[in-house]
Amino acid sequence: MKCAIDIDVRDVEELFINIDPIQAGGRLTPDAMKAAIAYGDGYSVCDACQKPFRLDYIKKPPIAQFHTDLAEWLNMDQVRVVPGARRGFQAVASTYVEKGDPVLLTSLAHYTEFIAVEQAGGIPREIPKDEKNHITPDAVAARIEDVIDEFKRAPPLMFLDHVDYQYGNVHDAKAIAKVAHQYDIPILLNGAYSVGIMPIDGKDLGVDFVIGSGHKSMAAPAPSGLVATTAEHAERVFRTTRSKGDITARTFGIKEVEMMGCTLMGVTVIGMMASFPHVRERVKHWDTEVARSRRIVDALLSIEGTRVLSDYPRTHTLTRIDTRNSFDKVAEVHKKRGFFLSNDLKKRGITGVIPGSTKVWKFNTYGLTEKQADHVANAFVEVARENNLSVS
Amino acid sequence: MKCAIDIDVRDVEELFINIDPIQAGGRLTPDAMKAAIAYGDGYSVCDACQKPFRLDYIKKPPIAQFHTDLAEWLNMDQVRVVPGARRGFQAVASTYVEKGDPVLLTSLAHYTEFIAVEQAGGIPREIPKDEKNHITPDAVAARIEDVIDEFKRAPPLMFLDHVDYQYGNVHDAKAIAKVAHQYDIPILLNGAYSVGIMPIDGKDLGVDFVIGSGHKSMAAPAPSGLVATTAEHAERVFRTTRSKGDITARTFGIKEVEMMGCTLMGVTVIGMMASFPHVRERVKHWDTEVARSRRIVDALLSIEGTRVLSDYPRTHTLTRIDTRNSFDKVAEVHKKRGFFLSNDLKKRGITGVIPGSTKVWKFNTYGLTEKQADHVANAFVEVARENNLSVS
Repeated sequence: MKCAIDIDVRDVEELFINIDPIQAGGRLTPDAMKAAIAYGDGYSVCDACQKPFRLDYIKKPPIAQFHTDLAEWLNMDQVRVVPGARRGFQAVASTYVEKGDPVLLTSLAHYTEFIAVEQAGGIPREIPKDEKNHITPDAVAARIEDVIDEFKRAPPLMFLDHVDYQYGNVHDAKAIAKVAHQYDIPILLNGAYSVGIMPIDGKDLGVDFVIGSGHKSMAAPAPSGLVATTAEHAERVFRTTRSKGDITARTFGIKEVEMMGCTLMGVTVIGMMASFPHVRERVKHWDTEVARSRRIVDALLSIEGTRVLSDYPRTHTLTRIDTRNSFDKVAEVHKKRGFFLSNDLKKRGITGVIPGSTKVWKFNTYGLTEKQADHVANAFVEVARENNLSVS
Repeated sequence: MKCAIDIDVRDVEELFINIDPIQAGGRLTPDAMKAAIAYGDGYSVCDACQKPFRLDYIKKPPIAQFHTDLAEWLNMDQVRVVPGARRGFQAVASTYVEKGDPVLLTSLAHYTEFIAVEQAGGIPREIPKDEKNHITPDAVAARIEDVIDEFKRAPPLMFLDHVDYQYGNVHDAKAIAKVAHQYDIPILLNGAYSVGIMPIDGKDLGVDFVIGSGHKSMAAPAPSGLVATTAEHAERVFRTTRSKGDITARTFGIKEVEMMGCTLMGVTVIGMMASFPHVRERVKHWDTEVARSRRIVDALLSIEGTRVLSDYPRTHTLTRIDTRNSFDKVAEVHKKRGFFLSNDLKKRGITGVIPGSTKVWKFNTYGLTEKQADHVANAFVEVARENNLSVS
């Protein structure tokens, strides 16, 4: 029989240093890889499922304990795992937003937040960023007032990207949450670029929901993620089904409506679990990660004409860089055009920069070793020198 | 550092013949296992993502081709992969059902259908089963009339379990779809126990949606599944986002609202893809699977007092059996009580019967080889004989 689908083995993480903006925090740990092999089969974690028949109650493997540990780690009261951060946004928006409700998000919000609002029938209203690409508490207050003027009521929900996907800037969630709460607006922290790589204390930040992505930042297979919340909000967002068969009178136990019952029944939850001890440890070394990010950004800035568009000095590993007056000048005359940069990097064992990009682009240094960070920093400088850009 | 989470290697599929009702069709193929190892990392399939930036357009690995192949295989027009069949129910219910709308499902409907209706704000109305545990076209027509009387309008959607989870009976989807269409009601076929194990021709059945489960019946990791639909309905259920940033004027391309953008970005879609050639082949041998199911059910029925509650002769591999007058009589006097059955089976290398169950229970013989089927059949008879039940 002919095998209709030809899937090449993916070896990019073995052969290259990958600085792709979205992939750095989602590489599996060796323990997650081992667990994924053992739990690849469909419903593999359901062998020991018992009353009350819900994923987060399973004791063997210790999924129940994992949920408790996650909540404690984030300093929140309750956690559920979900198929990606976006499914967490959907669960919360679907619970809090009625058709026609205004919902606040920011000018740096990820598209999945817009879609969660749209899916719930809400109307998105953006909070402007300032000239430094930050969301300020003042801008939040002003925009809440605007929305109240426009809709004659406060928005039932606000989204904030803890670290935005465009610049990798870390926003002041604590001060912003305080403002939102002055208007009694629950605030959802999108931690897709923070939960699993930076330390997070939900109660200290004062947010109502912390949402994380397993495949983006918790070294887990896709789709995976989590919703953490307070005891107050857990009752609403994790409400159990009230459905009843009108003929059979069947009821459905403690299955949760927004979770659609169980969520990650195999390799995804096991991958998150197996990586978790490593993830919990790695967030403690965030300063080292930031130092390596700075090392590489400084190397780029030593190339004449290069600018960093993200906060500088860097406070995150995701960076937006402007090389229109450096690498793009080379591209204008290079026989390979803009592809010279990704090619020259690839020769040096580095991948993840979109082939052809030499204008404004992003990269993520998360998880590089000291040696790898040095190598990447030197590679940028070498490529610049070889192409006659001056380096200071 | 102490590893906080202790995950035992799962070896049940290597050490035992597993007749668990929900796990039989979700065991990975060796190709899926290999692909899972290569694509375990978070966003592993996103290396070559290009405009228009959506999972089902990715050419390397051939995810776009996989979507086309799935649609052709099911004889439907469009397919998307989703994190489990339940997420497919949610996508369709959310699109078709407004708050307060009645939604038809059956007395044998899976709980996730009820939850999808509840999540969309609909009101479930069950179609009764007949004395043979079948959903008949007449019962469907009668219940539609009831609902129209009650709500003064037809339901906007009807769910039908192609094969129900309670009895493993195969229902007459074609005749039922015809009735639903006489009232212009779109019909969703829940193929969690059929797509991937039985041949399906969506156009021949005349249904509007075919929903399948990767982890239940397509030899794929969890959570995975698919929504297949017609060209007519694809426009609605797969509508693209209309969101726009009111300050930034950002728009979000062709991301689909109900899919929340992309769905299965790594091991889940790759697992489905790698198993697909095998799945496409295996559905052609459904008659062999049914023959083995019959072999085992006949062995059980040879034990005095045993009854089969599912259709007989069997037309599926999932079976509900009543051993209240056979194995449960043993349990009443056995020192291990009801646990003797699962224990005695385990000694013979068979697992998946809930420990302690000797009254009414379910098992699934899907995927057993001829030898394994013989062994399971003989094991039931041997356990009966050893416990002094008479066998005819």
